[in-house]
Amino acid sequence: MKELFGSPGRKSGLILRIGQCVFAAASIGVMASASGFSTSTAFCYLIASMGLQVLWSLGLACLDIHALRLNKDIYNHIVVSLFVVGDWVTATLSLAAASSSAGVMLLFTKDTNLCSLDLQTRFSCRMFQISIAFAFASWFLLAVSSYIMFWLVASVS
Amino acid sequence: MKELFGSPGRKSGLILRIGQCVFAAASIGVMASASGFSTSTAFCYLIASMGLQVLWSLGLACLDIHALRLNKDIYNHIVVSLFVVGDWVTATLSLAAASSSAGVMLLFTKDTNLCSLDLQTRFSCRMFQISIAFAFASWFLLAVSSYIMFWLVASVS
Repeated sequence: MKELFGSPGRKSGLILRIGQCVFAAASIGVMASASGFSTSTAFCYLIASMGLQVLWSLGLACLDIHALRLNKDIYNHIVVSLFVVGDWVTATLSLAAASSSAGVMLLFTKDTNLCSLDLQTRFSCRMFQISIAFAFASWFLLAVSSYIMFWLVASVS
Repeated sequence: MKELFGSPGRKSGLILRIGQCVFAAASIGVMASASGFSTSTAFCYLIASMGLQVLWSLGLACLDIHALRLNKDIYNHIVVSLFVVGDWVTATLSLAAASSSAGVMLLFTKDTNLCSLDLQTRFSCRMFQISIAFAFASWFLLAVSSYIMFWLVASVS
């Protein structure tokens, strides 16, 4: 396998994975603690999608730690090809979840003024926004990882 | 350049580009003719994003037709690298637009029953849904093109 910044089994790759985990977990935490999130399907979908991303990134981070400890290359072409598919599916789902929540949030804040009304006690709009920002950050890091993995697979085939 | 299904300058590539154009144009047409689309920022963003995709895909389709007519390879590594960046940006924006509209649509139909109320004359929910379906179809074809282009660039570098 070629050596690239962020490729699996390297420290930069591990940092990317940990970043994805942390942002996704933060997104779930903030969204789940916001009151009224269950009123919108998009927000529930965001929690589900970020949950999947936490599991996926945590698994790959553990593999990276294992590879760093053994100090050898445990990744071959077939393993990385499988990871690429998983990475892209997770990245697509994450972007879709973050965007759909952002669409609903725009409707709440800009189109209907639901957030500036007296309903503030029912809807914690600020927390929704923070959660969505974390989701986008997590998606961005996952997209970087996905591109690197895809590049590795394509360049050796 | 390697020859792959759907690579630029081939008939399959041209068909993919035309498909993207047609679906994106259909999405704009249906959304713009639906009453009440301007109430949501997400729907307006869908029109803008699909407009960008029509322009992008139409441009590349014209290049493909030109290459097929001349019957020679007008694509080199640098040109394809530039197209890959454009393809991925357009694909990300399209997915974000389609997802945010789908999130708002779910809020209208499932979470608030806005579509089943007497407001049907103000909101043509069925047309919103058709437009979003077209947008997802267009994004899917663009994603296929993007993967092929990225694969071509990575495999020759």
